[in-house]
Amino acid sequence: MSPGPALGRAEVLRAAQRFERDHPGFIRRTPLWKLPGSALGADCEEVWLKLEHLQVSGSFKARGMLNRLLANPIPAAGVIVASGGNAGIATAAAARALGVRCEVFVPTVSSAAKQARLRELGAQVVVTGAVYAEALEACLSRQRETGALLTHAYDQGEVVAGAGTIAQEIEEQGGGVPDAVLVSVGGGGLIAGICAWFEDRTRVLALEPELAPTLFRAREAGQSVDVAVGGIAADSLGAKRIGTIAWELTRRWVPEASLLGDEAIREAQRFLWQQFQLAVEPAAALGVAALRAGRPAPARRVCVILCGANLDPATLA
Amino acid sequence: MSPGPALGRAEVLRAAQRFERDHPGFIRRTPLWKLPGSALGADCEEVWLKLEHLQVSGSFKARGMLNRLLANPIPAAGVIVASGGNAGIATAAAARALGVRCEVFVPTVSSAAKQARLRELGAQVVVTGAVYAEALEACLSRQRETGALLTHAYDQGEVVAGAGTIAQEIEEQGGGVPDAVLVSVGGGGLIAGICAWFEDRTRVLALEPELAPTLFRAREAGQSVDVAVGGIAADSLGAKRIGTIAWELTRRWVPEASLLGDEAIREAQRFLWQQFQLAVEPAAALGVAALRAGRPAPARRVCVILCGANLDPATLA
Repeated sequence: MSPGPALGRAEVLRAAQRFERDHPGFIRRTPLWKLPGSALGADCEEVWLKLEHLQVSGSFKARGMLNRLLANPIPAAGVIVASGGNAGIATAAAARALGVRCEVFVPTVSSAAKQARLRELGAQVVVTGAVYAEALEACLSRQRETGALLTHAYDQGEVVAGAGTIAQEIEEQGGGVPDAVLVSVGGGGLIAGICAWFEDRTRVLALEPELAPTLFRAREAGQSVDVAVGGIAADSLGAKRIGTIAWELTRRWVPEASLLGDEAIREAQRFLWQQFQLAVEPAAALGVAALRAGRPAPARRVCVILCGANLDPATLA
Repeated sequence: MSPGPALGRAEVLRAAQRFERDHPGFIRRTPLWKLPGSALGADCEEVWLKLEHLQVSGSFKARGMLNRLLANPIPAAGVIVASGGNAGIATAAAARALGVRCEVFVPTVSSAAKQARLRELGAQVVVTGAVYAEALEACLSRQRETGALLTHAYDQGEVVAGAGTIAQEIEEQGGGVPDAVLVSVGGGGLIAGICAWFEDRTRVLALEPELAPTLFRAREAGQSVDVAVGGIAADSLGAKRIGTIAWELTRRWVPEASLLGDEAIREAQRFLWQQFQLAVEPAAALGVAALRAGRPAPARRVCVILCGANLDPATLA
């Protein structure tokens, strides 16, 4: 184990203070909805649904991106990111809120709808490269040229600390700490932030699609490793490797990582729509899928973070 | 004015107690989401969104129907209702929760999807009559034959009192009474319940589509009158005439009724989806449409009740 965590409660508190003091009204305090476990077919007394999919930009990533932008001087060239998904949308939204320039690099395979969304947010969209890795390379090269502030989808301290403010809110809104928290993992920015806040005061459980098992495979190997990614949630949880910050914090604080099949994820997404009128993307349905599969081991109060809603609503029907 | 209101806080409290004592876990305590007015483009300090579209059965009507069923002995023939919309779905859901039979009469024009939804909830669906009035007539005739308990979409005391529990929750969750409450009106069951609870302690403002103005026309005429109904929200707000209970309570407690065009309603529905990831039916978007049009007159804290989410998600795209 490393001698001390890369970041913890102090950095999360600092992020929350920045949101409040430096740019109030942008980050939303999303609702925490307490329901009897039975309402979700879960074997626990209470489920706390953190409705973070209602966050500005449609995902929790707005918190990390705003924190990154507020914590650093922003050059005239503005900010820059490589992402065709939630991280790009969140960066563009935060940049617009602060009135700074934003360049987003996306590969040619990214959908016209997502590119249009980025442009609506005022971003300059650069479409380049057949796959994400090529768009990233072009982005990094451009960044060296312009000196723009780079945001990373999950592996920057400010991005992780921003995500951690969700956990602080859960504790405040819930009037205490839940017995377990279920978190979807891709690159690990969200779970790292949750760990940074709760440390050993709850059980943070990692959930991944079978087809995108970055943390699961790293735990098997004893170190972060590249994995092949695909499946229903790949557009949000499709990082190839767990982030270095997430690897360090989850090794320390996460007792358990489990995998879920695409069918169970899709069933949970449909269940949330049909029974609760909650429109979430597949990546946000893993917690409810786990509950409906009888996980985690008995706990009284289980918190599930619904982390994103960037989806085509027609896919809910 | 009549000598005293048909029902008030006592009946609302009784409904809330029934939910808790006689059938806990069915009615959901839906979140109250406080946002800065500016986030919604509204000219007020705070907007309180009551996310009642997340209620079981997809609309607030489950409250009224469960209260109606709990307040009365249920004959062996079960319950019966004429409705192809939210009232039918809510009655079927409440009947299933209590394990009693349920017959729902719908006209031949009602969609196959809605009929399928009712059958999924265990209701016996009787498709009869070209228009709603004919289905209702057949329903009443059948009720006289079987003695089943009839539920009405809005004009029964228990149904109104059940809806009033929303207002009680708003007051508890908000930590006080908002300065104004914006309520969509069709037959008036929801607004009557809200008035019953708040009485003169807030300003309850009625909102209707221009194409379904039951309360607006009644106020012009000085009495309830039949109106032609149509437009984007007609499947939820398409009552032909304001209910007698709603007429009495709104005359007493509602200072203002306004109309909104279908275009403004549709814009607000899209805004709620695109900017807040909230999937609501058109009838539930009237409050936000009003706020975005600069109504009501300046108030500090304005509560908007999002009352239903029974929609085809493909229509949000």
